[in-house]
Amino acid sequence: MTLKFDIHARDGHARSGKIETAHGVFHTPAFMPVGTQASVKAVLPEQLIDLGAEIVLGNTYHLYLRPGLEVIQKFDGLHRFMHWDRPILTDSGGFQVFSLAQLRKMTEEGVQFQSHIDGSRHLLSPEKSIEIQRVLGSDIMMALDECPPGTADRKEVAESLELTTRWLKRCVESPKRDYQSLFGIIQGGMFPDLREKSLEQIAEFDLPGYALGGFSVGEEKSVMRAVMEEIAPKMPENKPRYLMGVGTPEDLVHGINLGIDMFDCVFPTRAARNGVLFTWRGRLHIRRQQYTMDDQPIDPTCQCYTCRNYSLAYLRHLNKAGEINSSVLATVHNLHFYQDLMKACRKAIEAGEWEGFYLERTELAESES
Amino acid sequence: MTLKFDIHARDGHARSGKIETAHGVFHTPAFMPVGTQASVKAVLPEQLIDLGAEIVLGNTYHLYLRPGLEVIQKFDGLHRFMHWDRPILTDSGGFQVFSLAQLRKMTEEGVQFQSHIDGSRHLLSPEKSIEIQRVLGSDIMMALDECPPGTADRKEVAESLELTTRWLKRCVESPKRDYQSLFGIIQGGMFPDLREKSLEQIAEFDLPGYALGGFSVGEEKSVMRAVMEEIAPKMPENKPRYLMGVGTPEDLVHGINLGIDMFDCVFPTRAARNGVLFTWRGRLHIRRQQYTMDDQPIDPTCQCYTCRNYSLAYLRHLNKAGEINSSVLATVHNLHFYQDLMKACRKAIEAGEWEGFYLERTELAESES
Repeated sequence: MTLKFDIHARDGHARSGKIETAHGVFHTPAFMPVGTQASVKAVLPEQLIDLGAEIVLGNTYHLYLRPGLEVIQKFDGLHRFMHWDRPILTDSGGFQVFSLAQLRKMTEEGVQFQSHIDGSRHLLSPEKSIEIQRVLGSDIMMALDECPPGTADRKEVAESLELTTRWLKRCVESPKRDYQSLFGIIQGGMFPDLREKSLEQIAEFDLPGYALGGFSVGEEKSVMRAVMEEIAPKMPENKPRYLMGVGTPEDLVHGINLGIDMFDCVFPTRAARNGVLFTWRGRLHIRRQQYTMDDQPIDPTCQCYTCRNYSLAYLRHLNKAGEINSSVLATVHNLHFYQDLMKACRKAIEAGEWEGFYLERTELAESES
Repeated sequence: MTLKFDIHARDGHARSGKIETAHGVFHTPAFMPVGTQASVKAVLPEQLIDLGAEIVLGNTYHLYLRPGLEVIQKFDGLHRFMHWDRPILTDSGGFQVFSLAQLRKMTEEGVQFQSHIDGSRHLLSPEKSIEIQRVLGSDIMMALDECPPGTADRKEVAESLELTTRWLKRCVESPKRDYQSLFGIIQGGMFPDLREKSLEQIAEFDLPGYALGGFSVGEEKSVMRAVMEEIAPKMPENKPRYLMGVGTPEDLVHGINLGIDMFDCVFPTRAARNGVLFTWRGRLHIRRQQYTMDDQPIDPTCQCYTCRNYSLAYLRHLNKAGEINSSVLATVHNLHFYQDLMKACRKAIEAGEWEGFYLERTELAESES
């Protein structure tokens, strides 16, 4: 079986539901912690489950280069290799080739690149991306798309989205495991009409899900939101909608308000390692002097392992001392906060109270910025 | 109450028993993981309990400088601050002043030094060391001793051990919490007669426990063992005997054979972060090419969380990729191995099979070196 998507409740554009995969269910709107190299940085699978994560993301580019397919193949995929038997989504590798790899060369066939690790040469084609994701055995695989730079002009973006559509066809035709679901990616940059054109072409394939790519790549947040407001509500209604690589708690709430169902971002885990912690009252920088003697938890309303057992003073100490447990405890809290936020969104949608919830959250975000 | 020590079984010099403190019991021979800065690097308290640790060590020098006494005082001690409600031993701070601090100046009063963190000036006296440890609220506190360098000559060592004895008197007279037990430290370098002299002076105080300091400070291992063979069996028979800062699995087995009851060392945790893993068949370097495709655990006989859930290939991948979870999983395994080793030693002693066990372990160590 490929995935099964059920929408339980709608409120405005916002939706609450669940997605069933061969490796179990996850609830939407969903935030997927990023496990780039077959490991969500600083947290173990049991901790992920404990903090409420139901699906994680793995990065095709990184895993293809290291440890490589031969190793993952030996474990029959990423699930057993990384000790995570729940749903996994893998990206196509395209975004990282465009952001990390060296000496890229684009052709109709695919993109040639050199590894950022050892300089070795590779070709990432639609067929190759799907082959890698087949070996990884992810539940949801992403089509290879071209990600034009934020500086690309209209003509470049228009050509690029056509290439992405041609590549999608090749992805669709490439062999997959029975249980794997392929999502197509809508490009079109910050041009609403090109976004719409891309959406029309991609939606033709009648895929199990659709994603918005090419956001949060350096554009103004107001521009991103304006374009998203145009395009997100037009995505196929009864299929999961995934906004790739975005972002802050406010971005998530905004995306949900436009009908997005799935998110991923390194932001909460990276912020944790940098001592930035999320709370329902806003962000907090643990290194600040004011926490030196503070025996309260990060957020008294939070039920995460970190808040149940540790004080701000202790967390500040660990951070200042450069202890590994500083990253562990901060990551547990931030990911728990993101999962809590998703739960609160689902609850508000199901209760028909989305608009009030949305306004409250966005007002807080504005008062902070 | 101060501590209560019961010896359950003896076999040769080796002993098996338990120590009761205000924060619970630990079994001897015991290995104490080192939590220098109020955190055992890369493992959480629940993980420590799960892998079998019953007592941890905190470092007075580090905790005094950061976060400082005012912070720890607010939490009424280290236990609540670091979320560890079981036994804690703290050292005197002396060893770190001699190894880490800058611009030291020794006087009868104590040792003046500058912080390695911010250059601030401090005086560590016997009274100050006990005051710090009183605030830390450790179950076992160590007397301040002078640690002469490994290059010190006989005259220097002889004078130094007399100073250590005078300092011990001042430690004994300094106020402590009711439940805290002070251990004295036997010095005397690599001179067996000076060791014996120190032992006689220190034992006069009839303390709840005694330690051997000044080992594993750069001397040849054969010299260390020869001196230990002379002195360890002469330590007070019915009091816990603690060999400070030593060491490898082989060192522990050797110490137990001479009647030592307690050990601490950063070796298993530091080795873990460097990709060196312990097994019953010897050490293993996880970065080696040979583990690239190995789907077996570190040690098939090991029941630790890491061995139950992860392969050598995955651990090698995490290490090569520089993932934080590499340190976490390796530390869990190494500390579990040390606790397992202690359990096996206790079992062999209780079964009257110590000699065979000891010979087998030391033969393995020789075949490895």
